[in-house]
Parts: sequence; C-alpha cells; structure tokens
Amino acid sequence: MNDMSWFTIFSTVGAALAVAIGMMFPALAMGRAISQALDAIARQPEAEKSIMRTLFVGLAMIESLAIYVLVIVLIILFRNPLLEYLVK
Amino acid sequence: MNDMSWFTIFSTVGAALAVAIGMMFPALAMGRAISQALDAIARQPEAEKSIMRTLFVGLAMIESLAIYVLVIVLIILFRNPLLEYLVK
Amino acid sequence: MNDMSWFTIFSTVGAALAVAIGMMFPALAMGRAISQALDAIARQPEAEKSIMRTLFVGLAMIESLAIYVLVIVLIILFRNPLLEYLVK
Amino acid sequence: MNDMSWFTIFSTVGAALAVAIGMMFPALAMGRAISQALDAIARQPEAEKSIMRTLFVGLAMIESLAIYVLVIVLIILFRNPLLEYLVK
Amino acid sequence: MNDMSWFTIFSTVGAALAVAIGMMFPALAMGRAISQALDAIARQPEAEKSIMRTLFVGLAMIESLAIYVLVIVLIILFRNPLLEYLVK
Amino acid sequence: MNDMSWFTIFSTVGAALAVAIGMMFPALAMGRAISQALDAIARQPEAEKSIMRTLFVGLAMIESLAIYVLVIVLIILFRNPLLEYLVK
Amino acid sequence: MNDMSWFTIFSTVGAALAVAIGMMFPALAMGRAISQALDAIARQPEAEKSIMRTLFVGLAMIESLAIYVLVIVLIILFRNPLLEYLVK
Amino acid sequence: MNDMSWFTIFSTVGAALAVAIGMMFPALAMGRAISQALDAIARQPEAEKSIMRTLFVGLAMIESLAIYVLVIVLIILFRNPLLEYLVK
Amino acid sequence: MNDMSWFTIFSTVGAALAVAIGMMFPALAMGRAISQALDAIARQPEAEKSIMRTLFVGLAMIESLAIYVLVIVLIILFRNPLLEYLVK
Amino acid sequence: MNDMSWFTIFSTVGAALAVAIGMMFPALAMGRAISQALDAIARQPEAEKSIMRTLFVGLAMIESLAIYVLVIVLIILFRNPLLEYLVK
Amino acid sequence: MNDMSWFTIFSTVGAALAVAIGMMFPALAMGRAISQALDAIARQPEAEKSIMRTLFVGLAMIESLAIYVLVIVLIILFRNPLLEYLVK
Amino acid sequence: MNDMSWFTIFSTVGAALAVAIGMMFPALAMGRAISQALDAIARQPEAEKSIMRTLFVGLAMIESLAIYVLVIVLIILFRNPLLEYLVK
Amino acid sequence: MNDMSWFTIFSTVGAALAVAIGMMFPALAMGRAISQALDAIARQPEAEKSIMRTLFVGLAMIESLAIYVLVIVLIILFRNPLLEYLVK
Amino acid sequence: MNDMSWFTIFSTVGAALAVAIGMMFPALAMGRAISQALDAIARQPEAEKSIMRTLFVGLAMIESLAIYVLVIVLIILFRNPLLEYLVK
Repeated sequence: MNDMSWFTIFSTVGAALAVAIGMMFPALAMGRAISQALDAIARQPEAEKSIMRTLFVGLAMIESLAIYVLVIVLIILFRNPLLEYLVK
Repeated sequence: MNDMSWFTIFSTVGAALAVAIGMMFPALAMGRAISQALDAIARQPEAEKSIMRTLFVGLAMIESLAIYVLVIVLIILFRNPLLEYLVK
Repeated sequence: MNDMSWFTIFSTVGAALAVAIGMMFPALAMGRAISQALDAIARQPEAEKSIMRTLFVGLAMIESLAIYVLVIVLIILFRNPLLEYLVK
Repeated sequence: MNDMSWFTIFSTVGAALAVAIGMMFPALAMGRAISQALDAIARQPEAEKSIMRTLFVGLAMIESLAIYVLVIVLIILFRNPLLEYLVK
Repeated sequence: MNDMSWFTIFSTVGAALAVAIGMMFPALAMGRAISQALDAIARQPEAEKSIMRTLFVGLAMIESLAIYVLVIVLIILFRNPLLEYLVK
Repeated sequence: MNDMSWFTIFSTVGAALAVAIGMMFPALAMGRAISQALDAIARQPEAEKSIMRTLFVGLAMIESLAIYVLVIVLIILFRNPLLEYLVK
Repeated sequence: MNDMSWFTIFSTVGAALAVAIGMMFPALAMGRAISQALDAIARQPEAEKSIMRTLFVGLAMIESLAIYVLVIVLIILFRNPLLEYLVK
Repeated sequence: MNDMSWFTIFSTVGAALAVAIGMMFPALAMGRAISQALDAIARQPEAEKSIMRTLFVGLAMIESLAIYVLVIVLIILFRNPLLEYLVK
Repeated sequence: MNDMSWFTIFSTVGAALAVAIGMMFPALAMGRAISQALDAIARQPEAEKSIMRTLFVGLAMIESLAIYVLVIVLIILFRNPLLEYLVK
Repeated sequence: MNDMSWFTIFSTVGAALAVAIGMMFPALAMGRAISQALDAIARQPEAEKSIMRTLFVGLAMIESLAIYVLVIVLIILFRNPLLEYLVK
Repeated sequence: MNDMSWFTIFSTVGAALAVAIGMMFPALAMGRAISQALDAIARQPEAEKSIMRTLFVGLAMIESLAIYVLVIVLIILFRNPLLEYLVK
Repeated sequence: MNDMSWFTIFSTVGAALAVAIGMMFPALAMGRAISQALDAIARQPEAEKSIMRTLFVGLAMIESLAIYVLVIVLIILFRNPLLEYLVK
Repeated sequence: MNDMSWFTIFSTVGAALAVAIGMMFPALAMGRAISQALDAIARQPEAEKSIMRTLFVGLAMIESLAIYVLVIVLIILFRNPLLEYLVK
Repeated sequence: MNDMSWFTIFSTVGAALAVAIGMMFPALAMGRAISQALDAIARQPEAEKSIMRTLFVGLAMIESLAIYVLVIVLIILFRNPLLEYLVK
C-alpha cells in the first residue's frame, strides 16, 4: 500500500470515531440541563421566561463544544492542512 | 490485498461502530429528559404546554448531535472526500 | 484469502457487534422513560392521557436513534455503497 | 485454512457474542420497568389497568430492540446476503 | 491444525462465554423485579394477587431474552447452519 | 501440538471461566432478593408466608439462569456434540 | 514443550483464576444478605426466628452457586473428562 | 512509507481523538453548572442577576480549559513547531 | 526453557494473583456485615447477643468462600494433582 | 525512519493526549465548585460577596493544576530540554 | 536467559503485584467498619464497650484475609515448594 | 535508532502522561473541598474566617501532592540523575 | 541483555507500581475513617476521647496493611531472597 | 541498545507513572477529610479546635502514604540498590 492509502484509511476511521466519541458527553450534558429546566418549570411556572433564557444560553455553550469537534472532523475529512506535506 | 480493499473494509467497520457508539449517549440523554418531563407533567399538569415546548426544543438539540454523527457516517459510506486521492 | 473474503467477514462481524452495541442504551433510555411514566400514572391517574402522549413521542424519538443504527447495519449487510469499488 | 472456514468461524463467534451483548441492556430495562410497575400497583392498586397497559406497551417497545438484534443474528447465521460474494 | 478443529474450538469457547455473559443481566433484572415485588407485598399485602400476576408476566418477558441467548448457543453447539459450507 | 490438545485446553479453560462468570450476577440477584425479603419480613412479619412463596419462586427463576450456564459447561466438558467432527 | 505440559499449565492457571473470580460475587451477595438480616433483627428483634430461617435458606442458595464453581474447578484439577482424548 | 507520511497520519488521528476526548468533561461540567443555575433560579427567581453573573464566569472558566485543548490541536494541525526538525 | 520451568512459573504467578483477587470481595462483604452489625448494636444495644450470633454465622459463611480459594491455591502450590502427568 | 521523525511523532501525539486528559478532571472540579456556588447564592443571597471570593480563589487553584499540564505540554512542543541530546 | 532467571523475575513481580492488589479491599473494608464504629459511638456513647468488641472481632477477621495473601506472597518469595522441581 | 533517541522519546511521553494523570485527582479533591467550603459559608456565614483558614490549609496539602508529581516530571525533563549512566 | 539486567529492570518497575497501587485504597480508607471521625466529633463533642482512641486504633490497622506492601517492596529492592538463585 | 539504556528508560517511565498514580487516591482522601472538616466546623463552630487537631493528624497519616510512594520513586531515580548488580 502506498502512503496516500494509509492516510485516507486512518483519517476516515479517526474522523468517524472522533465524532462519535465527541458527541457523547455533550448529549449527556444537554440531557441533564433540559431535564433540570423541565423540573424548574414544573416547580416555578411563572419563571419560565428566565429559565428558558438560561437554558438556551447553556445549550448554546454545550453545543459550541460539540461544534469544535465537528469542525476538526470536517477539516480532517475535507481540507487537511497536513495533506500538502504528503502530496509533495 | 490492494489498497481499495483495505479502505472499504475499514470504512465499513468504522462506520458501523461509529453509528453504534454515537447513538448511545444521545439515547440516554433523551431518556432522561423524557422521564423528567413525565415527572413534571404528573406534578404540574396545567403547565403541560410549556413543558412540552421545552421538551421538544431539548429533544431537537440532542437529536442534532446524533444527526451530526449520522451525517459523518453517511459521508464516509457514500461520498468520502478523501476517496479522490485514493482513486488517483 | 482474497479481498472479498476479508470484506465479508469484517462486514458480518462489524454489523453484528454494531447492532448489539447500538441497541444497548436506547433500551436503557426506554426503560427509564417507561418506569417514570408508570410512576407518574400512579401518582396522577387523571393525567394519564397527556402522560401517554408524552411517553409515545419520547419512545418514538429514542426508537429513531435505534433505527438509525439498524439502517446503517442493513445497508452494510445488503447494499454497501463501497462494494462497487471492491468489485471492480 | 480456506476462506469459507474463516467466514464460518467468525460468523459463529460474532453471532454468539452479539446475541449475548444485545440482550443485556434490554433485560435491565425490562427489570426496571417491571419493578416500577410493581411499585405503582402497590401504591395505587385501583390504577392497575392503565398501569398494565402502559407496561405492556413499554415491554413491547424494549422487546422490539432485542428482536432487532436477534433478527440480525439469525440473518448472519442462516442467510447472510454477503455470502454470495464469497461463494462465487 | 485443519479447519474443522479451529471451528470446533472457537464454537465451544464462544458458546460457553456467550451463555455466561448472556445470563448476567437477565439475572440482575429478575433480582430487581423480585425484590420490588417483595417490597410491594410487604407494603400492600392485599394486592398480592395482581402483584404476582405482574411479576410472572415480567419474569417471563425477561426469561424470554435469556432463552434467545440459550437458543442461539444451542444452535451453535448442536446444529450450526454454517457448518454445511465448512463440511463441503 | 495436535488438534485434540488445543481442543481440550481451550474447552477446559473456557468452561472454568464461563462457570465463574456465569455465577456472578445470579449470586448478586439472589443476594438482592433475599435481603429485600428479610427487610419485608421485618416490616410486615404477618405476611411471611406470601413473602416466602414469592421469594422461592424468584430464587428458582434466578437459579434456572445459573443452571443454564452449568448445563452448557457440563455439555462442553462431558459430551461436546462438536467433538464428533473433530474425532473423525 | 509437549501437549501434556500446556494442558497442565492452562488447567492450573484457569482453575486458580476461576475459583478466585467465582467466589467474588457470592461473597458480596452474602454480605448484603447478612447485613440486611442484622438490620432486620435490630428493627424487629421478636421476628428473629423467621429472619434466621429466611437468611439460612438464602445463604444456602447463594452458597450453591459458589459450590457449582468449586465443583467444576475440582473436576478440572482432579478428574478432567477431556483428559482421555489427550492421553490417547 | 516515508517519515512525513507517518507524521501526518499520527498527527491527524491524534488531533481528532484529542479534541473528542478533551471536550467530554468540560461539556459535563457545563451541564452540571447550567442545571444547578436553573435550579437556583427556580428556587430564588429574584437572585437571577447574580446567578447569571456567577454562571457566566464559571462557563467562561470551563470553556477556557476546552479552548486550551482546541489551541493545542490547531497548533498540531496547522503549525507544528516540531515540524521544522522533520522537514530538514 | 523446559516444560517444568514454565509450569512452576505460571503456577506461582497464578497462585499469587488468585489469592489476591479471591480475598478482595470477601473482605468487602465482611466489612459490610461488620459495619451493619455495629450500626445494629448502636440502635438496639439489648439485642447484642442475637446480633453477634447472626454476625458470626455470616462471617463464617463468607470466610468459607475465602477458604475455598485458599485451599485451591495451596493445592496448586504444594500438591498439584496434574503434576503427575507432567513428571512422567 | 530516522530518530528525529519518531521523536516528533511521539511528542506530537503525547502532547495532544496529555492536554486532552489533563483538562478533564479540572473541568469536572470547576463544574462542581461553580454549581455549589450557585446553590449557595440561591440559598444565602446576602453572602454573595464572600461566596464569590471563595469561588474565585478555588477556581484559581484548580486552574493552576490545568496550567501545570499546559506548561509541560508547551515545553514539549516548543522547547524540549531533552532535544539537545537528540540533535547532537 | 536460563530458566532460573525467568522464575525469579516472574516470582518477584507477581509477589509485588499480589501484595499490592490483595491489600486494597481489606483496607477499604476496614475503613468502612471503623467509620461505622465511630458513627455508632457518636450515636450511642454508652455502648462503647460492645461496639469496640465487635469492631475488634471484625477487624481481626478482615485482617486474616490480608494475612492469607501475605503468607502466600512470603511463601513465594522465601520458600516456594515448586522450586524443587525447577532446581533438579 | 540509538539509545539516546529512545530515552528522549520515552521520557517526553512519560512526562506528558504523568503530569496529565497526576493532576486529575488533586483537581477533583480541590473541587470537592471548595464546593464544601461554599456550602459551609452559605450555611454559617459568620464562621467564614475559620472556614477559609481550614480550606487554605487543605488546598495547600492537596496542592503539595500535585507539586510532588510536577517536581518528578521536571526532574525527568531537565535533570534526570539516571542520564549520567546513559551518557557514559 | 543478560539475565541480571532483566531482573533489575522488572524489579524496579514492579516495585514502583506495587507501592503506588498498594497505597491507593489504604489512603481512601483512612480518608473515610477520618472524615467520619470529624463528623462524629461535630455531633458529639464530649465523646472526643473515645472517638480519637477508636480512630487511632483504626488508622493503625489500615496503616499496617500499607506497611505490608512497603515491606515487600523494600525486600524486593534491597534484599530479594530469590537473588541468590540468580547470582549463582 | 545496551542494558544500561533499557534500565534508565524503564526506571524513568516507571517512576513518572508511579508518582502520578500514587498521588491520586491520597489526594482524594484528603479532599474528603477536608470537606468533612469544613462541614463539621459549619455545624459546630465551637469545636473547631478539636476538629482541626483531628484533621491534622488525619492529613499527616494520609500524607505519610504519599510520602512512601515518593521515597520509593526517589530511591529508584537517585540511588537504586539494584544498580550495583547491573553496573558490575
């Protein structure tokens, strides 16, 4: 096998596993935040507005971590900066 | 074995495992959010509307993480951008 | 062994493990949601209708994650798009 | 060893492990749902009918996940679609 | 070693481990359901009949999962459908 | 080493480990059921009869799972059906 | 090394590990049952007789699982039925 | 394969895994902080302002840890200082 | 290395690990039983006699499991029945 | 491959993993401290000042541990003192 | 390397690990028993005598398990009965 | 590769991993102590002084453990006493 | 490499790991006992004397387990009885 | 590579890992003791003196375990008694 083949194989498998692992805990964190928000609404329905605002800020922050992983994975799949050393 | 064979084998196995691992924790997070929503409805039936709204937003956010994994897996199976280097 | 043999072996084993792993946590999440629904019904029998509706929406969402895994596994077993590169 | 031998060995072991792993968490989820149903009946005996209905729907949903695993394992053991590439 | 030897060895070990692993969590789930039933009887002795009925349905459902594993293991040990490819 | 030697070694080790692993969780489940029964008797001494009946049914169900493992292990040690292919 | 040597080595190590692993969880289960019995006696000293009876039945059941492991280990060490194939 | 190829492969896989692992626990920590903030708001709605301030400071601190990982990963992908020794 | 050397090495290491692993959970179980006994005495000092009796029976049962491991280990170290096949 | 290549590869991968692992638990610890601070503010709003002071001291202490890891990683990537032995 | 060297190396490492592993859970169990004894004394200071007696019996029982491990380790280090087969 | 290269590679990777692992649990312990201090201040604001004093002593003690790890890592990176044997 | 080198390397690494592993759980157990003692003093300040006495006995017992590990490690490092077989 | 090189490499890596692992649980134990001391002070401020005394004794005992690890690691790095066999 030539170098390019190894590179594509490892990049593909690495990207698949990274996105799978990287989505695990953000999902868990979101589930926790949402379930607590539901609990808070059930306890204090009149505070729904500020609860939703806090929840959305929080989900956006957690989502940002997942997006970092996704961006790195997409960079690896579509436009890997290290590829130029390999192609030369 | 030639390069193409290794690539297809690793891509297939990697995709299967990635989708299996990547669905694990979103499922757990959903289960948590739903069970909390059920608890909230049982405690505060008249707040059902805002509970359902919050739940749906939350499930959509968690589902989005699972979709990211699914998209990467489908890209790997159907239209891997790294394949062009390999085919050449 | 020729390439095709390795491919069939790894695909088969990968599919079997992926479906086994991928069903684990959705099952757990369902168990959690159902047990919470049972608890909610016992506490608030008159809210059964809205509890059941929420439960069914939730189970459908969790089931969808399990279906994603099943679909990927069936694609791998019956109609793998990467196979055309291998057959050529 | 020829190709067919490896294939039968890996398929057999993979199937055995997959069915063993795939039944683990559905069993746990069922145990949770049933124990909660028993608790609900003890607390609210007059709601037994709706509890049993919810429980049966839930057990059927969880059982469906276990059946998916069983079906894939039986396909692998009895009628593997990838076998035709191998026999040729 | 010839092919048949490898096949018998891996089938035997695989079957032994699969039945050991596959019985683990159903046992745990049963233990949970039974202990909850005992708790329910202690709390509500007059509901014993409906508790026992629910418990038996539940144990049967969990037992079915364990039976699936046992059936696959017995198929592998006594009448493996993949054996015909190997014997030929 | 000839084939028969490998077979006896792997069968022996596999059987020893399988029986050790397969007894783990049934023991745990029994411990849970018994401790709950003791708790139930302490709380409701007059319901001892129905508690004992439920406990015995439950222990028998859990024991059955452990017996499945023991049977498979004894089959492997004393009368392995796959042995005839090997002896030939 | 000849076949007999490998067999004795693996049997010895396998037996040692199996008995060590197989005693782990029965011990845990016993500890749980006993501590619960002590708790029950402290709470309801006049029910000591029926508590002790239940405890002894339970310990005997758990001990039986540990004995299964011990029996298999002793069979392997002293009178392995598979040995006759090896000696021939 | 030449040195440069190994370097690009390992850098790519290492970066993908590092970003996936490095985002796991910050996500969990954020989920915890947010869910506690939601709980605090539900309990003490009039203290929302100081709760939000504390929450934002906290999320920024946790985010900083995730950013450290991201920065190291981007350095590795785009401008690795060790590369100059390799290129020479 | 000759056969006898391998045998002594594996027996020694196996015995050391088996006794270390086999004492772990009995110790834990004893700790649990004793701490519960202490709690029971503090709550019900006048039942000390029956508590001590139950505790001693329980510790003896758990100790018996640890003794099984110790006996197997001593058999392996001092008088291994499989040794006669090896010496011949 | 020459020595320098191995060194750059291992340093890069080691640095990436070290920063990812080293940020995990400080993040968790911060999440715990912040969520407790939020809880404290909700319970005792008038003590906000001393709570914030304690929180900031605590976060700084935890951050310092993360910084130690970051410093070692940056030393390894940019100015490894062991490099002089290698370059010679 | 000759046989004796391998034997001393494996014996040494095995003994070191066995004593380290074998002391882990007895320590945990002692910690549990002692902390419960302290709790019991704080709750019921006048029962100190019988608490101490029970505690000492318990610690002696747990210590005995640790001593079993220590004895096996010392046998291995100082007077291994299997050594005579090796020296011959 | 010569000896010096292996030494620098292993030292670098070992140092990176050691500092990452060694900071994990001190961070967790600090997080626990700080969160408890915050809880204590919220419950007993007038005892802030003695709480802070205890907290600082405690954090210093935990920090000292992390510093031990850091010192060993810096010794390994900058001035390894074993290096003189290697350089000779 | 000659035999003596292997022996020193394995002894050194084994001793380092054994002392690190062997100190883990005694530390945990001590932490538990001490924290319970602190709790007991806070609840019952006048029983400080008997609490301290019990605590010191307990810490000495746990310390003894850690000392066993330390003694074995020191024996291995300074005066290994198996060394005489190796030196000959 | 000569013997001395392997020895320095393994000693260095072993020492780094041992100090990192060996500091983990003492840190956890300290965190537990300190957080309990803070809780005790908040509950019983007038008992601060005896709480601090107990805490310091406890921290010293836990620190001693960490020091044992540190001493062994320093012995290995600076003055390994096994080195004289190697140098000869």
